[in-house]
Amino acid sequence: MLGSHGGDIYRNQIEYDFSVSLNPLGCPEEIQNAVRAASERVCQYPDPRQEELRRALAECYDSGPGNFICGNGASELFMAIANMVKPAKVLLPAPTFSGYEYALKGEAEIVRHYLREEDGFALTDRILEDITPDLDLLFICNPNNPTGQLVEEQLLTRIIEKCKSCGVLAVIDECFLELAGCGTVAARMEAGKVAVRMAAGTGGAIVVRAFTKLFAIPGVRFGYAFATADTIEALRGNLPEWNISVFGEEAALAGCRLILKDRQQNPGEDTYLARTGAEIAAERTFLSRELAELGFRVFPSDANYILFKEGPGQSTGSGEAGASALYDALLERGILIRDCSNFTGLGPGYYRVAVRDHDANEALVTALKEICNGD
Amino acid sequence: MLGSHGGDIYRNQIEYDFSVSLNPLGCPEEIQNAVRAASERVCQYPDPRQEELRRALAECYDSGPGNFICGNGASELFMAIANMVKPAKVLLPAPTFSGYEYALKGEAEIVRHYLREEDGFALTDRILEDITPDLDLLFICNPNNPTGQLVEEQLLTRIIEKCKSCGVLAVIDECFLELAGCGTVAARMEAGKVAVRMAAGTGGAIVVRAFTKLFAIPGVRFGYAFATADTIEALRGNLPEWNISVFGEEAALAGCRLILKDRQQNPGEDTYLARTGAEIAAERTFLSRELAELGFRVFPSDANYILFKEGPGQSTGSGEAGASALYDALLERGILIRDCSNFTGLGPGYYRVAVRDHDANEALVTALKEICNGD
Repeated sequence: MLGSHGGDIYRNQIEYDFSVSLNPLGCPEEIQNAVRAASERVCQYPDPRQEELRRALAECYDSGPGNFICGNGASELFMAIANMVKPAKVLLPAPTFSGYEYALKGEAEIVRHYLREEDGFALTDRILEDITPDLDLLFICNPNNPTGQLVEEQLLTRIIEKCKSCGVLAVIDECFLELAGCGTVAARMEAGKVAVRMAAGTGGAIVVRAFTKLFAIPGVRFGYAFATADTIEALRGNLPEWNISVFGEEAALAGCRLILKDRQQNPGEDTYLARTGAEIAAERTFLSRELAELGFRVFPSDANYILFKEGPGQSTGSGEAGASALYDALLERGILIRDCSNFTGLGPGYYRVAVRDHDANEALVTALKEICNGD
Repeated sequence: MLGSHGGDIYRNQIEYDFSVSLNPLGCPEEIQNAVRAASERVCQYPDPRQEELRRALAECYDSGPGNFICGNGASELFMAIANMVKPAKVLLPAPTFSGYEYALKGEAEIVRHYLREEDGFALTDRILEDITPDLDLLFICNPNNPTGQLVEEQLLTRIIEKCKSCGVLAVIDECFLELAGCGTVAARMEAGKVAVRMAAGTGGAIVVRAFTKLFAIPGVRFGYAFATADTIEALRGNLPEWNISVFGEEAALAGCRLILKDRQQNPGEDTYLARTGAEIAAERTFLSRELAELGFRVFPSDANYILFKEGPGQSTGSGEAGASALYDALLERGILIRDCSNFTGLGPGYYRVAVRDHDANEALVTALKEICNGD
């Protein structure tokens, strides 16, 4: 399954990578400085107890350090959760992030909850019927990847409650949450506390987040989970002892400082996180409109990426080596997008693009106009 | 079990850390530069296929890229191996590195092969009798930690062959190998190829190594495994998708370049790796002699660490909070050593110290003289 993700810059020559969805502002100065400083700490073992990290995260969420554990990226946490639960049967929405299936390693029966195109692929309360006591695990991606919608807050509460009553562990993947929705990043983190409180207070859920997308640092590897202290303790035992590098430590501590600082700013002040929210909202509107004008079906997105589909008369058909002609034509122009044909629940003609900065988005639109209209 | 390792500088104020055993020369300039350069790549996902890394390792060992996989430190590989094999029954020498038991997560029955103090805790062919078809997994630490002896080459071959005939997977942990024995590091890597060839050629074994000790970079997290391509492929499926950070990537590539360069040097030339071997050999002799003169029983070591034991009339007894008085007295002087009383197969009165540079070793000896002789 490796290599089916976006972002494969290692086997492509590209100028604009729209296949990975990172903060369009790039890595903030504070985190760049922190990882540079971490270079002086390579001779030190990282702290296997993650004490400072867990305290810093707890401060961001007004929670306790015992409710947090850090992973070498969210992907390490997904696999550790699967190893901890050893599920016989797992419910996965379709389409959703393929990393959950990877984490399950073919060792569990997978039941699919198909999202409906007529709902714009939004998660609805239909899923509640599919949460049954024969399941062990459920993954919810909020906002969902690649479709882009947030799970409505009340529905998320009902999902977690249903899971708890059925003895199913719900994994709520919120790696894109801070980059989704409207308003400030601080407001979104505040809203995100619903899932946090549910996870840590009542059990039945583990929330997984990461600094990968929020601070555009996929090269560093830093994710974290929160849940009840008992669940966190069990999860710790499924993670290697020194799983966070000193670079992950320093980047994450700097990230927590940025979040705390942002919270203390006055509304409207020009901070990295405030600019992040404004940039994504404006550029998502721009890209969605342009894609729709080109004749694509654009699915409503709360996130920093957009799913779209070729129209009936518009299909560019298959290109070389089975990839779509649209994907190939963009790649020829140095632009990498995510062909979503291999997502369970989608098929040929679906694509995901990141919401990037305006210059990059303009370059994408210009290339698409050339390809679709022969401009 | 977390926190039972050496190196806990996060909960101690120390000046000299003898509890972790790293290359006494510290991190080479080339790797320091490489991780600094990696800071510019934080916005990139690492390569989930590890193509460049696996090619570089294969070049160092004159082997194929398909025989290698990289881990976020050797500790990630141990846990991935345990998750892959799901062993019911595992043979572990005693004493040995506690990380194997940690990786097993209490999910397997552990059978112990006790090393004998009268053999200087060396592994002997007695272990062959204990390798039986009811086992699934065996861990061999070469040189053994904390005792310091290399496994004799012919014995290692016989162990792997017995494992193969019994259907037992042998994990050969050689994280300290390049820092052990006499002669140049290049010669030791050459000698280490015995296990490599056995593992990659005949199956029955996985060899795990790391750059953590060799290049003194525990903060970076980089280890690797080699085995048959089939075993490596199965192990890959038990590792998260982007498990090596860009810092791990760049450090490891620089490390491979150093190893290749060292191989092309003329004998006797003054390189980092040549100095490493000479420094450890000289300082191990110095420290062993000084410890023996103080009345400790010093176990013969091939490695960059030394196990010693308090003599009968010499016991300093228990200090505060159950730690030994010797440990406490050194800690009061800002020196951290590894109290080995919690190793299965050892007990109170055993300690491990790293072979460090001469100034540090002098400081340790001076402090020990103060404590033991009241100098």
